[in-house]
Amino acid sequence: MRLSEAGELGLLAELERRGLARRIEDDAAQLGGGLVVTQDALIEDVHFRLAWTSYRELGFRAAAVNLSDLAASGAEPEALLVTLGAPAETELDDVLELYEGLNEPGVPVVGGDTTGAQLLTLSVTALGRSERVPGRSGARPGDALVVTGPLGAAGAAFRQERHARPPVRLEEGRRLAAVAHAMLDISDGLAVDAGHLAARSGCKVEIELERVLLAEGATVEDLGFGEDYELLAATPDALGFAEIGRCAEGSGVEIRLRGEPVALTGWEHFGGGRGAGDLR
Amino acid sequence: MRLSEAGELGLLAELERRGLARRIEDDAAQLGGGLVVTQDALIEDVHFRLAWTSYRELGFRAAAVNLSDLAASGAEPEALLVTLGAPAETELDDVLELYEGLNEPGVPVVGGDTTGAQLLTLSVTALGRSERVPGRSGARPGDALVVTGPLGAAGAAFRQERHARPPVRLEEGRRLAAVAHAMLDISDGLAVDAGHLAARSGCKVEIELERVLLAEGATVEDLGFGEDYELLAATPDALGFAEIGRCAEGSGVEIRLRGEPVALTGWEHFGGGRGAGDLR
Repeated sequence: MRLSEAGELGLLAELERRGLARRIEDDAAQLGGGLVVTQDALIEDVHFRLAWTSYRELGFRAAAVNLSDLAASGAEPEALLVTLGAPAETELDDVLELYEGLNEPGVPVVGGDTTGAQLLTLSVTALGRSERVPGRSGARPGDALVVTGPLGAAGAAFRQERHARPPVRLEEGRRLAAVAHAMLDISDGLAVDAGHLAARSGCKVEIELERVLLAEGATVEDLGFGEDYELLAATPDALGFAEIGRCAEGSGVEIRLRGEPVALTGWEHFGGGRGAGDLR
Repeated sequence: MRLSEAGELGLLAELERRGLARRIEDDAAQLGGGLVVTQDALIEDVHFRLAWTSYRELGFRAAAVNLSDLAASGAEPEALLVTLGAPAETELDDVLELYEGLNEPGVPVVGGDTTGAQLLTLSVTALGRSERVPGRSGARPGDALVVTGPLGAAGAAFRQERHARPPVRLEEGRRLAAVAHAMLDISDGLAVDAGHLAARSGCKVEIELERVLLAEGATVEDLGFGEDYELLAATPDALGFAEIGRCAEGSGVEIRLRGEPVALTGWEHFGGGRGAGDLR
């Protein structure tokens, strides 16, 4: 069986079953002393196109998508490690711009590695501390489902052949982490990520699509793109964040638009869910 | 200026000067509470060829080269995070073999990410705790220069179109870290890595090549290849490890074979030091 057939979740389930990896589908790993660690990679022509972004924006993005995982863990970030793989003909000034962007969120780059590579490859580890990590498995029937901002910007930008600038919801993440029963960031698409939450928590997630604030230029179809990096939380107290639905007894995700059931697509990392020409 | 002209050290110096990265040439970053973190990437056809290795050996290698950085920091490893980028047509069984290898050193994989990629790409973060990190800057005139094992195996294997299995010197690293003034692992070649130690410590490193134990099948030329992952330490007490030279007043590296000066090459990450057809 190939990865495209097994899918990312199939691979992760098999690794877990064999004891070869623990909870790598989580946003971040928890170690002793409140330490929270996460790692994400951006690969040229898989996660980004250089024609669609500046090096500075790319650096910011690499930091932001990792900090988003810390935000979903309610963590205060401490440090980034950055491994840069770059072709030898890359301009030094471009690489310096890239590191400017990596430093933009204000979390110091304290380590990493540099190496030659055929395509630009960025792997970032973000470390932080959290007093309470909500995780994905604690959502309960009756919880409000909230998001920290408008969705669909990444999908809309993709249609215009550019990359959206991801938000960094660290402060929102810390506020929600104090009370939320479950939280994650929306990277694979609203329906897919809500599905992760429902499956891990053993409940049903009901979403009222008319309550989801769309980003400028975005349509409902853009919600399936993912990469919005807003936080999605199941919480007994909405804390003033936008409520887009609730948790109920049952399983799976039920999405309705003005009462009518709607199907949203989502992202599959090994190409099972979309055409092979798509980015990511 | 291109990366191939600036070189890895030129890039790192410029990043440091602009405050965009701190000490990313070190083996590992030190955070609070004795936490030591390191990150390294292995990219297909840059760091390895699939024709020269099994997936299991590749996984072991990815873990081992990161654990080597923890060993050079005198750390007890706690966890690995692994980001795997793989083509969609990769066989699931091969990926499972890869994770078997990653788990072989006995340090749990607690997080990471999986993604599609054009070429197999492995980025590993290793976390551990150390009571005392010798670093690279404390070597003093009079220190003995010791290595933890024979050198040249990686270069000899490369000539035979295969990859050598790296050693994991965690126990040796912890013993040396208690007393050594400076320590690193030999990844860029004996001369280059000794040069790092000399430059950072502000001393001269003198090596007597006839004291360097060569791995089976290795020649003196193979010492320039690097990737041996033995530890090199400047220490007031050799603790029974092989003494290959000493630190003295001055600067630079002086290598002699039976009293005669010898020049050894070393590795440059952006292709400045070797032919473009070379691996890594």
